[in-house]
Amino acid sequence: MPSIDEYLKTHAARFEGELCEFLRIPSVSTDPTHRGDIDRAAQWVGERLRRLGLATEVVPTTRHPLVLAESPSVDGAPTVLVYGHYDVQPAEPSDLWQSPPFEPTRRDGNLYARGATDDKGQVLTHVYSVEAWLATERRLPVNLKFLIEGEEEVGSQGLYGFLTDHAQRLACDCLVISDGAQFAPGQPAITYGLRGIVYFELVLTGPKSDLHSGSFGGAVTNPANALARMLSALVDERGRIQVPGFYDDVVPLSSREREQLAALGFDEQRFFAQVGVSGAIGESGYTSLERRWARPTFDINGIGGGYQGTGGKTIIPAQAMAKFSFRLVPNQDPEKINRATEAMLHGLCPPGISMKLTQHQGTPGVLVPLDSPYIQAAGRAIEHGFGRAPVFIREGGSIPIVSTFHKTFGADTLLIGWGQDDDGAHGPNEKFSLADFHRGIRASARLWEELSRIKKE
Amino acid sequence: MPSIDEYLKTHAARFEGELCEFLRIPSVSTDPTHRGDIDRAAQWVGERLRRLGLATEVVPTTRHPLVLAESPSVDGAPTVLVYGHYDVQPAEPSDLWQSPPFEPTRRDGNLYARGATDDKGQVLTHVYSVEAWLATERRLPVNLKFLIEGEEEVGSQGLYGFLTDHAQRLACDCLVISDGAQFAPGQPAITYGLRGIVYFELVLTGPKSDLHSGSFGGAVTNPANALARMLSALVDERGRIQVPGFYDDVVPLSSREREQLAALGFDEQRFFAQVGVSGAIGESGYTSLERRWARPTFDINGIGGGYQGTGGKTIIPAQAMAKFSFRLVPNQDPEKINRATEAMLHGLCPPGISMKLTQHQGTPGVLVPLDSPYIQAAGRAIEHGFGRAPVFIREGGSIPIVSTFHKTFGADTLLIGWGQDDDGAHGPNEKFSLADFHRGIRASARLWEELSRIKKE
Repeated sequence: MPSIDEYLKTHAARFEGELCEFLRIPSVSTDPTHRGDIDRAAQWVGERLRRLGLATEVVPTTRHPLVLAESPSVDGAPTVLVYGHYDVQPAEPSDLWQSPPFEPTRRDGNLYARGATDDKGQVLTHVYSVEAWLATERRLPVNLKFLIEGEEEVGSQGLYGFLTDHAQRLACDCLVISDGAQFAPGQPAITYGLRGIVYFELVLTGPKSDLHSGSFGGAVTNPANALARMLSALVDERGRIQVPGFYDDVVPLSSREREQLAALGFDEQRFFAQVGVSGAIGESGYTSLERRWARPTFDINGIGGGYQGTGGKTIIPAQAMAKFSFRLVPNQDPEKINRATEAMLHGLCPPGISMKLTQHQGTPGVLVPLDSPYIQAAGRAIEHGFGRAPVFIREGGSIPIVSTFHKTFGADTLLIGWGQDDDGAHGPNEKFSLADFHRGIRASARLWEELSRIKKE
Repeated sequence: MPSIDEYLKTHAARFEGELCEFLRIPSVSTDPTHRGDIDRAAQWVGERLRRLGLATEVVPTTRHPLVLAESPSVDGAPTVLVYGHYDVQPAEPSDLWQSPPFEPTRRDGNLYARGATDDKGQVLTHVYSVEAWLATERRLPVNLKFLIEGEEEVGSQGLYGFLTDHAQRLACDCLVISDGAQFAPGQPAITYGLRGIVYFELVLTGPKSDLHSGSFGGAVTNPANALARMLSALVDERGRIQVPGFYDDVVPLSSREREQLAALGFDEQRFFAQVGVSGAIGESGYTSLERRWARPTFDINGIGGGYQGTGGKTIIPAQAMAKFSFRLVPNQDPEKINRATEAMLHGLCPPGISMKLTQHQGTPGVLVPLDSPYIQAAGRAIEHGFGRAPVFIREGGSIPIVSTFHKTFGADTLLIGWGQDDDGAHGPNEKFSLADFHRGIRASARLWEELSRIKKE
């Protein structure tokens, strides 16, 4: 029998060919005209998993089907669930693509196609690592489940519905997600922290219609004035949030983490140049990277009211609104923040204004302890696959499913993205490095072995 | 020879008939398809004035023509310029009119038509008063000029161009404008004060494109956050403006004015019910009416940035903007306020944000002294025409031409509106009371006589 790594080398060309086949299916989840392609992609993934001998089911949901697969039971070994998605973003604007988005094309060691890095290429690394195990060792060292959904780009409603009704089928000790990027070319990473979020919409209503600001100004409370005042009271000039109790439950950064983040050598000036600003102001006592990844924030995401056209119009607007959100860090409770924010805003709302506050999202932050055996196992597997130990990073965004699995099963998540920062996940000319594809398969194959050594409590 | 008042009674029906003729011309200034109607209306007014024997000219401008007319010279008498406009607002939404907007219809003592009160009916009161003088006395007691423009509803560009090039043709001691409302039914008024205005547009630019608020929040200055902070720093929670030196030149209300305003019996609760609010917050120490008419204000007229659609979008917007204005009172200098505001905003603008401030308008406030002989003369004329002495009121809005004539000629303005608050000047079912039409003509005829007694300095 060949070794797993030998098997992977021998079959590398076929893996690439099958990835191309998968990428040719334009499984755009947001576009109803691609509904047939969505089904084809779900069946394609299901068929791959079924061929490996996994108990596989393509499950209809309220919108797009889920692909579920489960390996034979391995007593005493942890249960690992691989989460990914077969749906893709639209390819538009199509004319910015150098090669057709659904005709995978090799250039400079990369494969260009919509879905290459997000997430078809990364999903298949875990499928082929399982194939290699079964073809060479005739067994898997852990209990493996696959959950590959078709609505990741459009809100995952079907998945949440399924989770509510059939949580037990997804029970696991550890969730593995490869749907992101490494820290830099040649530098793989494990993302061990995510921020949470609470997102609000605030609508302030004053007079029943727009009023002439000359005839009425001074005698009527202006909802746009009130909005600016209320929003600016939520935060100080350096971004320190003023909602009472907001920081009470924040887990502070450990000195180990701060050292590790500092060691990443984040170049702030380069970052400013990239986003096109000359500088920034932020919370005192924290570096730019700490503020992005590990500190809570307040951002107005949208604001509107009154006359926004050309020139001037002298009105007191009848209404003004803002959408705003707090990014949360562990262990802040979205519900507690929600209540405190609402209470503060009610206190700030002036006479003559009625306010309506709607909460759109609430997801807690997530932190996998750096000394977790899962993180340690993933570190060794990645070092094997990529020839370099990963760095440990956090991400400022939120992935609701990670919080959900943590809450439902107490499962830690391994966020091990094989892509690159410049893969263009939602833009034109999306790509995935073929070298990273194969390194990812090798790391994944080693991951199952490393995870099998973890003793279940 | 009949007396003037007898002449007016004899010819009342013809005046109404001619007003209807004028109202049938749909001289909508904003709509290029009505360009021919604009010209017809200008010629119609010109013809009326020419027939009286005034030296009349219909003057083309960059857009719509001006009608200018001048009486024979009366040595030693003041020169009075009647300003008005022959253009009207669009009639849309037409289906809300009970009778066709350009088919004048009598109901309940009112004449319903677009332009009835704003401003065709009011303009003609001064035309017929001149006719009565010339028909009965064979002379006018003052030097009279008419300036009737066709762009009042669309910015008066043609008029300002003419003023720049031919100011001397419009020179006068006193400007008479009837283009507004009385204080209440049966209670005529003289408006002796107007607020000025400075109007700004502030655009704040941060990153070169919208950024993911999760991945970037905390490390980038958010332009919408900055906007809320900067705007709310301009004013306190009661509307007291915080721009340095803002109140330095404000002419305080005299106790006589405060008593007169209080005596008007303004019903604040009724006002709140009308505009649809439960209350208001405003500058301490002033009544609602004082705040509207005689105190400076800050109002955000429009605000926008980021995502304003349905649901949530987690972005840091690249840009945010606001339109805002200060209403000024005498003797605040718009240029001084402009400079102080710009300096303050520059000081408030945080790192990572570039700001662009544009000034759209700058007009000083105007106050005609209550003891001015022109005001006294108008008071007596109105009492004759309406059978009741006028009250003295101010208006919170701005009429740029009033400031311009004051600045150019040192001319005081008599704002003597014959309309009612509920005439619906820019809305459907615009009306003008026929009784007020005739009272206005009688008051106007007496006004020329009263003004003739003023000794020129």
